[in-house]
Amino acid sequence: MAFFIVGMMGSGKTTIGKKISKILNMKFIDMDSYIEALESKSIRDIFNEKGEIYFRTLETKTLNLLKDKEIIVSCGGGVILKKENREILKKYKTVFLDTDLQLIKNRMNSKEEIEKRPLLKKESIENIFEKRKNYYNKFKTFKYDIKTEDNYIISRIIRYFLDENQIISEDNSIQNYKIILNYKVEELEDTFIMSEKVNQIYGKKISKKIILENGEKSKSIENFQKIMNYLVEKSKNRSHTLVGFGGGTITDITGYSASVYKRGMKLKLIPTTLLSQVDAAIGGKNGIDYKGYKNIIGTFKYPEITIIDPLFILTLDESDYIQGLVEAFKINLLSGEGFEIFEKEYENILNRNINSVLKIINNSIKQKINIVKKDFEDKGIRNILNYGHTLGHAFESITGKPHGLSVAWGIRKENEILKKKGIMDDHTFYYIDRILIKIVGEELLNINIESKNLKDFIINDKKINRNKINLISIIKPGSYELLNIDLKDFLEMI
Amino acid sequence: MAFFIVGMMGSGKTTIGKKISKILNMKFIDMDSYIEALESKSIRDIFNEKGEIYFRTLETKTLNLLKDKEIIVSCGGGVILKKENREILKKYKTVFLDTDLQLIKNRMNSKEEIEKRPLLKKESIENIFEKRKNYYNKFKTFKYDIKTEDNYIISRIIRYFLDENQIISEDNSIQNYKIILNYKVEELEDTFIMSEKVNQIYGKKISKKIILENGEKSKSIENFQKIMNYLVEKSKNRSHTLVGFGGGTITDITGYSASVYKRGMKLKLIPTTLLSQVDAAIGGKNGIDYKGYKNIIGTFKYPEITIIDPLFILTLDESDYIQGLVEAFKINLLSGEGFEIFEKEYENILNRNINSVLKIINNSIKQKINIVKKDFEDKGIRNILNYGHTLGHAFESITGKPHGLSVAWGIRKENEILKKKGIMDDHTFYYIDRILIKIVGEELLNINIESKNLKDFIINDKKINRNKINLISIIKPGSYELLNIDLKDFLEMI
Repeated sequence: MAFFIVGMMGSGKTTIGKKISKILNMKFIDMDSYIEALESKSIRDIFNEKGEIYFRTLETKTLNLLKDKEIIVSCGGGVILKKENREILKKYKTVFLDTDLQLIKNRMNSKEEIEKRPLLKKESIENIFEKRKNYYNKFKTFKYDIKTEDNYIISRIIRYFLDENQIISEDNSIQNYKIILNYKVEELEDTFIMSEKVNQIYGKKISKKIILENGEKSKSIENFQKIMNYLVEKSKNRSHTLVGFGGGTITDITGYSASVYKRGMKLKLIPTTLLSQVDAAIGGKNGIDYKGYKNIIGTFKYPEITIIDPLFILTLDESDYIQGLVEAFKINLLSGEGFEIFEKEYENILNRNINSVLKIINNSIKQKINIVKKDFEDKGIRNILNYGHTLGHAFESITGKPHGLSVAWGIRKENEILKKKGIMDDHTFYYIDRILIKIVGEELLNINIESKNLKDFIINDKKINRNKINLISIIKPGSYELLNIDLKDFLEMI
Repeated sequence: MAFFIVGMMGSGKTTIGKKISKILNMKFIDMDSYIEALESKSIRDIFNEKGEIYFRTLETKTLNLLKDKEIIVSCGGGVILKKENREILKKYKTVFLDTDLQLIKNRMNSKEEIEKRPLLKKESIENIFEKRKNYYNKFKTFKYDIKTEDNYIISRIIRYFLDENQIISEDNSIQNYKIILNYKVEELEDTFIMSEKVNQIYGKKISKKIILENGEKSKSIENFQKIMNYLVEKSKNRSHTLVGFGGGTITDITGYSASVYKRGMKLKLIPTTLLSQVDAAIGGKNGIDYKGYKNIIGTFKYPEITIIDPLFILTLDESDYIQGLVEAFKINLLSGEGFEIFEKEYENILNRNINSVLKIINNSIKQKINIVKKDFEDKGIRNILNYGHTLGHAFESITGKPHGLSVAWGIRKENEILKKKGIMDDHTFYYIDRILIKIVGEELLNINIESKNLKDFIINDKKINRNKINLISIIKPGSYELLNIDLKDFLEMI
């Protein structure tokens, strides 16, 4: 079954359609180009030689040819002028891309563009739109203006195209989680905790909610009290459910709040970032920050259920997405499963192709759960997840770069040290490095930090054991050595 | 082996000795009276007729007669003047009661007292003391002045008399606890949390400690932060131990703090009140109060170990002791084991006799653990522990009486209602009532609260389910019915 996009010329149908096709792994077809190929003539020539009525009939024919294929079709702007076309489109999932006319006019300004589009020579865009708008508006409409991010509208259109609540996989061996494509979060009647950002994108239909400011700073004891105040005021009891809907910050503070309110209320987690889907929301840890220490107050509590919808990934900022990829790569590299995808399906990953993202999520969660199974209460084995963190943390503090990117830098730097010492072999080093470069880019990895600065930071880092440093040396994917190095020796290596 | 008390005439040796004898279940002997009986003569006559040297020899003889008996001996004031006597006393546990001379003079003012004591007629108390003080001070000295409470000094003397760290019983079926007589708390090198009051009595030798204000108000989020601040500043890690040393307030906030700092550090509880020994510190619940709601924030966490020393009971205020008794009676009545002691050993209980107190503690903990075993996470069965709480809570709020006493009132009142309705039989009612009267006194139980006031409170009590009231009707000890009554019907019963 095809998905159709209708809308004015120059409204972005092709751009959006192509992006969606890459995400959903479906072929993209531009109907005008398809007709041009069928007729071996340009649209302008068809119009000039055979007129609009003939052209519309060609559109009908094309719609009938394409409608049952697994494709995304960007339709010609005037396709909805013909009743028969409209009737076909209505039977299928068709969206109207309601782009701001001024935006279209800016894009259509070039002579070349006007030349390509026969109608534009005769009439103004406003007039054309006036005649069509009642037809357009009959379809599921997505407003697309300059302020709206591409990936936000893409995510919404994809959610419209896809069936709701498709269960991809589930597991309840230790943490009950479900990977659900196109999850309808607004159907839950529980109390949500979310950031301003998530509320803006996904919160419109959610009524019971506590909104916290964006970012790590919201994991504060003040916000914990804000949540407690809400629960107390609403007289919530232990059988009520708190839903943590957002990134790791939100799932962490929600988990903690639910674990201590009346000694434990119900908890659901719906992580929305790749990082939280593969890491933060998996494994039962929660916490808040206090006095500058991350997660210094927290508990272990598995949610009743964790719901992972890979479509949330689509609205992530590039940097957030990459941070998630670094984390996922780290877990998969350590476990020796699923790491090849970062090289083999790199293009798809870059395009946030749902199949690739799903593979990454599935693999990472499985591996994370394997590690957690061995060490639920964090008695040591979980330490391997700190791969790259010793120097990554220093890099993060010195440069202010995001955590996930800093970890990538830390992995590279720690690997370099181990290679220099002859502990890590060249082959493994370059294999890991090649993938790291793909994920975060060489520029970041090549940032040079004076060793003096790194050493100073490590010496003063309260989190670091005064005597010994844990360092992980990858032998090959899935096989590693946990080195316990004297702080003194480690400082000399840097 | 006998315990000896030496000190000046009128220093309180007999009063203190008798109290200790009741607590430790040992016979009390006043050496002067014993000699008078042996010689069939008054001390005055012995002095007058045979002189002081002869009298001191009688003392030596008596000491030798008594020293290996299980008794507490209050010695004559001058016993230490003879070397041989001092040598006997030094081989045994002997304490010097160092009472303020002014206090003694006030007590010795009557003619009758002076008449009884031969030395007093010749010399001033100051002169007598001057001659003896170097001998007295060779013994373990307990300062006893007007400001010091009787039960405080009694507790310290008993701790000196008894062997340290006597393990009475232990259990680790679900909660690892030990009943240890004369536990040396200062030997622990962990971080203590205690109230100002407990610090004053027991804290002198404890260096790592966080002191909170006395009373329920200290279970605040501010104090929780105070504890977190301390742990963060001292860079404590998860393997460090927090010791909750005090009543339920302290064990609750300590348990909560230890359960969330770094997602759980080690925890020891040393409850010091009867109430916390039989209830609050048993069962793994902890919590802090927030926005006027008790324990609204908390977790379930069993401590590594709970140490119960019945000697702590000796320094409790009367009202605190009684509250613990009410709680213990309630648990034992519900479980049908150990409730008879409250009638049979009533005199001993009143005197805080260690054997009786131990029985109460042992029984209550066992029963509490049985209930907890069935319902660790508080899903319902624990509800029976709320016996008497519906009306008790109302009484507490209206009169401001302590919680434990209010529960006693609540039990009586709820029983009365059930008796009136023919649900509870007269025999059971009067049996329970007789014991309640012994424990808390008839005056308290007879306090009359207008039913209108009780009803108003219950209608507005947010803790009470809007529709149904749980009421427990005791059929006989160990057998009860859990009634679920419509709020409307219940209000009519009051």
